[in-house]
Amino acid sequence: MPLVGVVIGSRSDKELIESTLQILDEMSVSYELSVLSAHRTPKKAMEYATSAQERGIEVIIAAAGGSAALPGFMAAWTTVPVIGVPMPTSDLKGIDALQAIAQMPPGVPVACVAIGSWGARNSAYLAASILALKHRSIRERYESYRTQQRQG
Amino acid sequence: MPLVGVVIGSRSDKELIESTLQILDEMSVSYELSVLSAHRTPKKAMEYATSAQERGIEVIIAAAGGSAALPGFMAAWTTVPVIGVPMPTSDLKGIDALQAIAQMPPGVPVACVAIGSWGARNSAYLAASILALKHRSIRERYESYRTQQRQG
Amino acid sequence: MPLVGVVIGSRSDKELIESTLQILDEMSVSYELSVLSAHRTPKKAMEYATSAQERGIEVIIAAAGGSAALPGFMAAWTTVPVIGVPMPTSDLKGIDALQAIAQMPPGVPVACVAIGSWGARNSAYLAASILALKHRSIRERYESYRTQQRQG
Amino acid sequence: MPLVGVVIGSRSDKELIESTLQILDEMSVSYELSVLSAHRTPKKAMEYATSAQERGIEVIIAAAGGSAALPGFMAAWTTVPVIGVPMPTSDLKGIDALQAIAQMPPGVPVACVAIGSWGARNSAYLAASILALKHRSIRERYESYRTQQRQG
Amino acid sequence: MPLVGVVIGSRSDKELIESTLQILDEMSVSYELSVLSAHRTPKKAMEYATSAQERGIEVIIAAAGGSAALPGFMAAWTTVPVIGVPMPTSDLKGIDALQAIAQMPPGVPVACVAIGSWGARNSAYLAASILALKHRSIRERYESYRTQQRQG
Amino acid sequence: MPLVGVVIGSRSDKELIESTLQILDEMSVSYELSVLSAHRTPKKAMEYATSAQERGIEVIIAAAGGSAALPGFMAAWTTVPVIGVPMPTSDLKGIDALQAIAQMPPGVPVACVAIGSWGARNSAYLAASILALKHRSIRERYESYRTQQRQG
Amino acid sequence: MPLVGVVIGSRSDKELIESTLQILDEMSVSYELSVLSAHRTPKKAMEYATSAQERGIEVIIAAAGGSAALPGFMAAWTTVPVIGVPMPTSDLKGIDALQAIAQMPPGVPVACVAIGSWGARNSAYLAASILALKHRSIRERYESYRTQQRQG
Amino acid sequence: MPLVGVVIGSRSDKELIESTLQILDEMSVSYELSVLSAHRTPKKAMEYATSAQERGIEVIIAAAGGSAALPGFMAAWTTVPVIGVPMPTSDLKGIDALQAIAQMPPGVPVACVAIGSWGARNSAYLAASILALKHRSIRERYESYRTQQRQG
Repeated sequence: MPLVGVVIGSRSDKELIESTLQILDEMSVSYELSVLSAHRTPKKAMEYATSAQERGIEVIIAAAGGSAALPGFMAAWTTVPVIGVPMPTSDLKGIDALQAIAQMPPGVPVACVAIGSWGARNSAYLAASILALKHRSIRERYESYRTQQRQG
Repeated sequence: MPLVGVVIGSRSDKELIESTLQILDEMSVSYELSVLSAHRTPKKAMEYATSAQERGIEVIIAAAGGSAALPGFMAAWTTVPVIGVPMPTSDLKGIDALQAIAQMPPGVPVACVAIGSWGARNSAYLAASILALKHRSIRERYESYRTQQRQG
Repeated sequence: MPLVGVVIGSRSDKELIESTLQILDEMSVSYELSVLSAHRTPKKAMEYATSAQERGIEVIIAAAGGSAALPGFMAAWTTVPVIGVPMPTSDLKGIDALQAIAQMPPGVPVACVAIGSWGARNSAYLAASILALKHRSIRERYESYRTQQRQG
Repeated sequence: MPLVGVVIGSRSDKELIESTLQILDEMSVSYELSVLSAHRTPKKAMEYATSAQERGIEVIIAAAGGSAALPGFMAAWTTVPVIGVPMPTSDLKGIDALQAIAQMPPGVPVACVAIGSWGARNSAYLAASILALKHRSIRERYESYRTQQRQG
Repeated sequence: MPLVGVVIGSRSDKELIESTLQILDEMSVSYELSVLSAHRTPKKAMEYATSAQERGIEVIIAAAGGSAALPGFMAAWTTVPVIGVPMPTSDLKGIDALQAIAQMPPGVPVACVAIGSWGARNSAYLAASILALKHRSIRERYESYRTQQRQG
Repeated sequence: MPLVGVVIGSRSDKELIESTLQILDEMSVSYELSVLSAHRTPKKAMEYATSAQERGIEVIIAAAGGSAALPGFMAAWTTVPVIGVPMPTSDLKGIDALQAIAQMPPGVPVACVAIGSWGARNSAYLAASILALKHRSIRERYESYRTQQRQG
Repeated sequence: MPLVGVVIGSRSDKELIESTLQILDEMSVSYELSVLSAHRTPKKAMEYATSAQERGIEVIIAAAGGSAALPGFMAAWTTVPVIGVPMPTSDLKGIDALQAIAQMPPGVPVACVAIGSWGARNSAYLAASILALKHRSIRERYESYRTQQRQG
Repeated sequence: MPLVGVVIGSRSDKELIESTLQILDEMSVSYELSVLSAHRTPKKAMEYATSAQERGIEVIIAAAGGSAALPGFMAAWTTVPVIGVPMPTSDLKGIDALQAIAQMPPGVPVACVAIGSWGARNSAYLAASILALKHRSIRERYESYRTQQRQG
């Protein structure tokens, strides 16, 4: 049963999210990957979000570009922590998605990370650090990674 | 039975949307005003959007600031044309909302107008011009307004 | 007799607008494509806009980059709903066109969509959703498209 | 017979353009002030622009905010040099108007100056420097102003 | 023993962070407030961050403006999840802080929320949603808040 | 004896300014091209600007990127009209140069055109329209160009 | 004989630069304040810059808004280190000045600090840190200030 | 014993900083290059900064992208002048780093230069101009470079 639900708006985002999945693997965090759109498939996205908690999902990572509503849409329908990854598009380069994901109205929080590949990787580390509060094995993996990192 | 559904994210947006309602009145366009949030009250917002068409709503005007998901949320759940009005907030002044509303992904269109009071007024005129295609009385009012406008 | 008038500022915009035309075809919406410039050929553009309605045009889609005056120019001379598509240019990437199209002064509305290819496609869907209010066949095509879309 | 045609989009812009007129007076440049809108009164604006040259106008100064189409609209219909002054609006503070005025497509030039009061003043000095090429008295006034300025 | 460490760069940020503390109170989340600067008092800040976990801190909320290094500085020295709140300053209005906090390099995650008062409030809700994974009473409070919110 | 002085900051800008020279040729406007830097060769640039008028130069076109001080530097030392062309650089794409050239302080005007190739071409047309006030042959060429342009 | 030359573009900048002078006093750094404009009084500014070094000036602090050419102008005419302070103006809030000062072309360096009052203060501290390399008393004052600062 | 400490956040920044090192060589300024991260290796970075002065380092050049905390981190732990070079990343192109480096809070100054290769080169010239105050040979080299530069 996966702890992290990774959701992307379209199949074309798969390549960018690859590093997220790889790091979750390295941190021994179980996950599932789903293709969902807040705009194109809202019913499917709503059902995903509303059932996430009872299916055992403890953190959701949602990547989206442009209007980038997916992270906020997830957060609207669940109380599980949601991490939003702004995806760059060819013209505005993710500055639109960054603001759309970060500027959530009070009462429905989303944790925004960096645009593109930096954010894709940090969404996995952030998920690990959150899950580390409860799951000892993830905590050990994450702390071991950070300790090693500090050695340069 | 109202033709236009005007939706705002919070009661504090009422003042800015006042000019929208006034112009709809002037154009003889019937409307209803609702307070709905894509993030705080998603179920209520979804029910509004999914039932809009059968209740006779032909155009939705949605105003929102920051992440400004409301117009896109409406558009996701209905096929009725949705007009989005970016609301300015104290820091980013609506540039975040403008991009969040305009940069909708392909397949789910939203008609974005200007930030703040200019957009609030134009959302009503745009709704009138759309409804004018079908409703003769609205067409007459809107064309009469534009004719008068051209006299300076 | 076409229902939608698609206008572009220069022949070099044809490639980007190709997807608009294709979607209009898919939605069974008749259209015509014209090359017009608010700045270089204002008389031709004015004549197009002022005669559009009587020629049966019910929606105008205007794509433009940089100062991007074409959508607003169309809207100034007609009461038909105008959809503006911001085109990216090599340096400012369409952020200039987005603001020029969205920030219309009150009294002359333009419906702005996303920059570039996303907006090109959504301009066609938005036109279809507007025409759907009056034309049953377009309504059926558009709703069928959206229903299919929701299945992911 | 005025040499400079100063045009503003609405009466509310009069205060900001006051400094333009005052400097034109100081430079002994004759002028006329007109309220015209590229969007709301396009016919009136077109007639102004197309008749400007034969009425003796040698430079047009056009101030506009938001989409700020007025300078480009003037330039489209005349061959007289057009100076555009971006006006700040409450939210985007003129950054939209600056880009809309500066980013004119090739073939139809506009001379863009600074946003707001700086630009309002420099539009008059720029007009004086252009007219100075032909009019000796304006040249003397402008050069005298600049000489005095250099003394700090 | 507090679960959340709230850190601000200077005493002048206290007013803005007041809503954070109030919401933490409402969510029954214990906290401590400290004034620390990544730039002016780096040793004090480092000691805070390196000892946070062993003192029982499970989430750090760091608010900062301008270069806004405090959240990233905290994250560099601890493995506890860090939430960053971009503070607006008089000129750039927090757009600098938003990017500085969101654009963290891969390997050291920070959870960025909205600029100013929206973010101040959401930092508390995000902290509650994270702590809810482990602490049943916080979970109950947070879910009860969200349930109530959905009733509009 | 050239009427237009075209100045560029470095030899690498020659390619972009090529279209300026070509259009000046087409408009029968005589010109000279010089490589000058406000920052690297200020004495040479000052001598150029201070002697321009007496050498018969009636308009200066200055292209520059980044801080883009060259147009303003020219304008500071001469009363001849100065047209500034913002050049794109690899990172900020000319948005820095556009603002640096447009935002001149009151008293020293510069006529700013579009970023990059659009502006390079329009700087020549703008120069032609200015010189047309005094030089009949340039006026005929420029008006003939614009008449032809209007035929699309 | 002053070590630091503080230059501002106009008398209206005096208030903002007040904190610079106060901190220089506290650091025991001698200074002089001059009102100079790269655009309005270029000869005076050039004479200031070219004579600065022989008059004993070891660092120049130049504050400017908008096009903000003054720091780069100083740097063009002297080899003394130049610190540039971007001043906010009412519309673009200093983002134009920040980029104009920071984006200097290679070969003529300027040290850019923050917009407005933060930068005004840091320009004095930066000057002190530079002079500290050579002047023992300034070094002692600056290090003593920083030591005290670290105590919070 | 090197006078300048050049620090970069990761090995991938080496290529961009190459020009810095080459110019330091040309100016006869001794230097050392270190790979340090404010976020990934804060202890190593802190030890570097706190020991820099006693090891004879008189200027630090720190290059960083994104959140770009490295220059400010260095400045926090040392009183040696710190020059910050904003590095472009693939999406925001260094605009984030420019603001993060320039917008330092009062009391801890950083000298910000241009984004990318322009800034990399100017960081070396700025360092040379600072060191020139104390070191005659560097002064001669730097002044000789600038004299030669002025010949175009």
